[in-house]
Amino acid sequence: MPGKALRVGMVGYAFMGVAHSQGWRNARSFHNPLIEPELAVVCGRDTAKAGELARRFGWGEVVGDWRELVAREDIDLIDICTPGDTHAEIAIAALDAGKHVLCEKPLANTVAEAEAMAEAAERALSRGVYATVGFTYRRVPAIALAAKWLWEGRVGCVRHVRAQYLQDWLTDADAPLSWRLRKEKAGSGALGDIGAHIIDLVQHLTGESVTGVSAMTETFVRQRPLASGDGFGEVTVDDAAVFLGRLSGGALATFEATRFATGRKNAIRLEINGTEGGLAFDFEDMNVLWWHDATAEPAEAGYRRIVVTEPEHPYLAGWWPPGHGLGYEHAFTHQALDLLDAIAQARQPAPSFTEGLGVQRVLDAVQVSAADESRWTPIPGSRVGAS
Amino acid sequence: MPGKALRVGMVGYAFMGVAHSQGWRNARSFHNPLIEPELAVVCGRDTAKAGELARRFGWGEVVGDWRELVAREDIDLIDICTPGDTHAEIAIAALDAGKHVLCEKPLANTVAEAEAMAEAAERALSRGVYATVGFTYRRVPAIALAAKWLWEGRVGCVRHVRAQYLQDWLTDADAPLSWRLRKEKAGSGALGDIGAHIIDLVQHLTGESVTGVSAMTETFVRQRPLASGDGFGEVTVDDAAVFLGRLSGGALATFEATRFATGRKNAIRLEINGTEGGLAFDFEDMNVLWWHDATAEPAEAGYRRIVVTEPEHPYLAGWWPPGHGLGYEHAFTHQALDLLDAIAQARQPAPSFTEGLGVQRVLDAVQVSAADESRWTPIPGSRVGAS
Amino acid sequence: MPGKALRVGMVGYAFMGVAHSQGWRNARSFHNPLIEPELAVVCGRDTAKAGELARRFGWGEVVGDWRELVAREDIDLIDICTPGDTHAEIAIAALDAGKHVLCEKPLANTVAEAEAMAEAAERALSRGVYATVGFTYRRVPAIALAAKWLWEGRVGCVRHVRAQYLQDWLTDADAPLSWRLRKEKAGSGALGDIGAHIIDLVQHLTGESVTGVSAMTETFVRQRPLASGDGFGEVTVDDAAVFLGRLSGGALATFEATRFATGRKNAIRLEINGTEGGLAFDFEDMNVLWWHDATAEPAEAGYRRIVVTEPEHPYLAGWWPPGHGLGYEHAFTHQALDLLDAIAQARQPAPSFTEGLGVQRVLDAVQVSAADESRWTPIPGSRVGAS
Amino acid sequence: MPGKALRVGMVGYAFMGVAHSQGWRNARSFHNPLIEPELAVVCGRDTAKAGELARRFGWGEVVGDWRELVAREDIDLIDICTPGDTHAEIAIAALDAGKHVLCEKPLANTVAEAEAMAEAAERALSRGVYATVGFTYRRVPAIALAAKWLWEGRVGCVRHVRAQYLQDWLTDADAPLSWRLRKEKAGSGALGDIGAHIIDLVQHLTGESVTGVSAMTETFVRQRPLASGDGFGEVTVDDAAVFLGRLSGGALATFEATRFATGRKNAIRLEINGTEGGLAFDFEDMNVLWWHDATAEPAEAGYRRIVVTEPEHPYLAGWWPPGHGLGYEHAFTHQALDLLDAIAQARQPAPSFTEGLGVQRVLDAVQVSAADESRWTPIPGSRVGAS
Repeated sequence: MPGKALRVGMVGYAFMGVAHSQGWRNARSFHNPLIEPELAVVCGRDTAKAGELARRFGWGEVVGDWRELVAREDIDLIDICTPGDTHAEIAIAALDAGKHVLCEKPLANTVAEAEAMAEAAERALSRGVYATVGFTYRRVPAIALAAKWLWEGRVGCVRHVRAQYLQDWLTDADAPLSWRLRKEKAGSGALGDIGAHIIDLVQHLTGESVTGVSAMTETFVRQRPLASGDGFGEVTVDDAAVFLGRLSGGALATFEATRFATGRKNAIRLEINGTEGGLAFDFEDMNVLWWHDATAEPAEAGYRRIVVTEPEHPYLAGWWPPGHGLGYEHAFTHQALDLLDAIAQARQPAPSFTEGLGVQRVLDAVQVSAADESRWTPIPGSRVGAS
Repeated sequence: MPGKALRVGMVGYAFMGVAHSQGWRNARSFHNPLIEPELAVVCGRDTAKAGELARRFGWGEVVGDWRELVAREDIDLIDICTPGDTHAEIAIAALDAGKHVLCEKPLANTVAEAEAMAEAAERALSRGVYATVGFTYRRVPAIALAAKWLWEGRVGCVRHVRAQYLQDWLTDADAPLSWRLRKEKAGSGALGDIGAHIIDLVQHLTGESVTGVSAMTETFVRQRPLASGDGFGEVTVDDAAVFLGRLSGGALATFEATRFATGRKNAIRLEINGTEGGLAFDFEDMNVLWWHDATAEPAEAGYRRIVVTEPEHPYLAGWWPPGHGLGYEHAFTHQALDLLDAIAQARQPAPSFTEGLGVQRVLDAVQVSAADESRWTPIPGSRVGAS
Repeated sequence: MPGKALRVGMVGYAFMGVAHSQGWRNARSFHNPLIEPELAVVCGRDTAKAGELARRFGWGEVVGDWRELVAREDIDLIDICTPGDTHAEIAIAALDAGKHVLCEKPLANTVAEAEAMAEAAERALSRGVYATVGFTYRRVPAIALAAKWLWEGRVGCVRHVRAQYLQDWLTDADAPLSWRLRKEKAGSGALGDIGAHIIDLVQHLTGESVTGVSAMTETFVRQRPLASGDGFGEVTVDDAAVFLGRLSGGALATFEATRFATGRKNAIRLEINGTEGGLAFDFEDMNVLWWHDATAEPAEAGYRRIVVTEPEHPYLAGWWPPGHGLGYEHAFTHQALDLLDAIAQARQPAPSFTEGLGVQRVLDAVQVSAADESRWTPIPGSRVGAS
Repeated sequence: MPGKALRVGMVGYAFMGVAHSQGWRNARSFHNPLIEPELAVVCGRDTAKAGELARRFGWGEVVGDWRELVAREDIDLIDICTPGDTHAEIAIAALDAGKHVLCEKPLANTVAEAEAMAEAAERALSRGVYATVGFTYRRVPAIALAAKWLWEGRVGCVRHVRAQYLQDWLTDADAPLSWRLRKEKAGSGALGDIGAHIIDLVQHLTGESVTGVSAMTETFVRQRPLASGDGFGEVTVDDAAVFLGRLSGGALATFEATRFATGRKNAIRLEINGTEGGLAFDFEDMNVLWWHDATAEPAEAGYRRIVVTEPEHPYLAGWWPPGHGLGYEHAFTHQALDLLDAIAQARQPAPSFTEGLGVQRVLDAVQVSAADESRWTPIPGSRVGAS
């Protein structure tokens, strides 16, 4: 049983606030982090709603202003669960105040903001203060297993990547105009919201960078009814983005992020082919990893359906017996667990803000290319390896 | 926000104790039960271990003797998570003391015990005290959806049921002799442990009774190394049970429960064919229900893969957006939620001890038939409907 | 290019006549049998229909009476594609006349007939004349691969078998009464028609015998409209049969053959669990074999989806490049090929009439058990091995 | 039974020669074309090999020079199964000589050749002579069903298309240099060989044109051992091609054709999302079409697995009962059948040479874009519809 706990202050109480609350709580209930989290303070402008979350998940206190939270001496980590346009200001203030930071993805709405955040994280790092960005899908056990195997070289040199994040909630042309469909709030549409995840996953899994892209984006329905019911408003973000990418090791990658993939609700699909094998994943069957070992005899080769629920699999030892699958929210517990251990051991948690900035640069290049006839657009600062 | 909470006292702290703790806690965090649960007291002979569970999940207090717990005035419900040989004594004492009871499955190790328990539950019912048995898989959303549709008549008159519960943890002949492999502790082997679940599911889903069975059981490995490492001991329960059953509506059913299904970890498979359609489920892909509508045009007919994560689906409105799947443990939350609502509304929660007794009678008949050359063995008291 | 061809005379011109014609023809077009088949004579009482088949597939001649065919000097092999009630008479006459015989399954409608046929085959064998029965599904490449691996011991000692043959063409209660639903013509219903296949496959794949059964059969719809449209007639065969079986090596097996599995058209499903691994097959995805290697590391173990289209796989070298799947009819070509090679090499082709008789004895035991309260019914003459 | 037959002369005797032979033969054996084909003459420079094909499939005659074949009075149709660099010369000569032409895909190795062929086809058309190109996968029943439903408007306005053709036979860097890897013979690599198929399928299924592309191609292994074993030679074609496309109706499409998709042998994958539904297909499970009806109730919606073996499905009435799947080669029979009927009814068979030319223009644009930093490259002459 650890001694002093890590006191968490969380900003935000909506979808991500709930997921993070469950993550912190279960890290302690099911696992043995080197330092235990304490759900100290939840912060939200609507203190009634924040209070309701506190009551349901056992947060100790509620405050209304994030500046107040950041100023407190008794908080060790700020967990940022607000929309993207607020990330930079809160994160930089928190890091400068000596708080560790977990910031939801995408890191920011612009490259400039993300750069400032990465700089703040560098400054903080020198003082033993850590920043990380919440690309939570890395912690789905099947994906963590895929990463481990890719890094061990099991698929050899990567030749092809297919990455898709498919949703369909905008297929209906009568779906109302929400803040997510306005550029000033959301930065971009499907691209930043879900495309960011698959860019991060591809770079994380392969250990390579996307060195350039050729892209198209589209807004299929350009006017939508206002939520007020009073007329129509303009959609100012993308409904879908498709792009080609080159990885630093020479592989060809295709990416697709869309809210118009009729019948697909949250299908994150990853498929990687290398010289020694292949891996495939679909979040619609999230406890399964498919692995092809190309070194097997031809008559015996085939994609193997691995049910990732064995105690030998990443994160599984803390949960249930084999065959008792996990769900969406468990990745938030794994994120909390990894972060707590990194802080306890005084090492940089992954992914760093610099990695988050790297994703942001790909998102930016996609928009540049899409606006310029799909012209090939290199990613500044990306590592270019040998083919 | 409800007023007075329902104060829960839980007996047991192992696998099921953890699952129930998570269930009670999440019922309150994610849903709006008509009465909220309070994790009041956890009871275990090993109070250190019970204390560790209390610390991790927020139980208010720890006691060492279930009799003490049952005697307390401030406890409203006793949640029994101990092995089957203790169920009858604890449950009857608790009901007689005016506590509601949630008892893990199987209800008991013998029909006689189960009958006594069902009688105690009948007595309690007349005083507004409720008893229920933890056939948790009923609350997997895909299964709950299947039940709803079967009861609505969507598959018409049921003709065939295939029910399998497949595990493989005994395939290795060197796996040690545990208490689960001794009849005096466990009552039976795969039959009572996992066979009980599929019997309950079949009766629940179809709304029909198993009226008789013809069965075989087998112990493939009859001696196993003692956990002490010191020699071998006798396995005195079944490794596997297979049986044919007739449903009260005339359908033919096949059942299989085994710990020797190499490569299958926790595969609960259900398939039902009726005059109007079919349904299929596999716990290895637990967020999916397959539905065939036989009234569709032949060219358009096919099993439909329904991802059961829509807000319209049972239990889903409290959780995440569509496509964000649930895991094994969520069914325990749904069980807690349904039980809390039933108590708040002063109605019998399902499944009753009488239903649990019904399952016990099928288990008993399986053993009778298997011991007597698979002779057809009717189930006493089962409803026999018209074909 | 081989010298003298094997001249085939086929009796029957319906579904099976077409399939066999394609089999003989393609054995010569795609493979290199040691002796080539010649489609010499097709025989049918309706010579116009037989003539149409001859025209379409290139049979050289048409005759109306099988006796005439059997009496001819210039015919080497009689291929019997008629209904089961005619098999015994034709096959025995042909064998006694010194013709090789390929007889469609089930071998006969009764054990007595099958015994007489097996005796005739024994007599013929001593004169270098061969008889075989058309359990064609053995020659689906994925099943042939499974057999090879089982015989090599890849799954170790077999513990469980699940065998299902699921169709749904009788689900509609208004489907008319055909000859297949009358006992005097068809012998039995789903049991003999499709149950015979899975009994043969289980015995073939495991190399073990079914030593006894406990069974239920059912006729769900007992009266059906006459094809004439003029009133109703009695269904006198089973619609479905389910049974438990014990294999000679000790394994537990479940069998189901039905014409009421709504939504399943021709689903032959086989699943075998042994001490070293598992195998699974579904004819709905007939070019795939699933294999689990239980000796793999736990973190790497999983059912492997092997697309059985490599040149190293059984029968595939004669066909198309990898990934170009085969269909239902190809197994008839493989059957012809295997039979031609066996005859050319003067060895008994598999399966022999004795194997067909073995299946018939299981079918008979199923009917005995089903008529006597599912009482355990041993199979006379089955090999009983050690557990 | 039709009167006069259509006399076919086929040029080529390798993989495609075999597939076409089976196609012509089975069109007559299993279906009722309005005019029957006669396998009259097969032509090949190696007359021994051509003769062997003739013997196996029943071609009446063998000749060594295609010019001789084209000059004959007694031949009605020339079936061109030779490599792409010979298509233009043979096809134009045949059409000018008044023969119908079936030409294997891709239509030609260059746009210029394809244009000349399309012009020849136009000239011939005015004389009642027909030309068609062998994009055979259109005739896989599941794909034909998808086309029918798309044209009926079942998926509404198309928003997304994903098209992949995945093979892996070049993953091994030691695989030898074949003529398929030399530009002067093959024109291009994966792009023309298999990419052509998915371009045709996308345009055919949607009834829309690809109006422009942004592309990357790659040759991962640039030197390969000579088949002679004597040193290495240069690979001068692409190993893989990935590209983005815009359809004339506004949809976004992604395409991938590769010989480096480890573990995928011949996986043609198509997925289409529209405003009213979705369709998905994978040639690894070629008898299945997945259909999502977005107009269904949310709780009931899901991708439906349609086993395309019902008599109501395209081409199926001539084959086997439901559930008895077809294989790769059956599409060649359907191609022959459709062509025979078109000729008998004096109408243009699909796809015309003009459609083949359209595919060629897309292939050309892919190469132009890939050579110019993925610059957006419009397709000349493509129809541009309204979004």
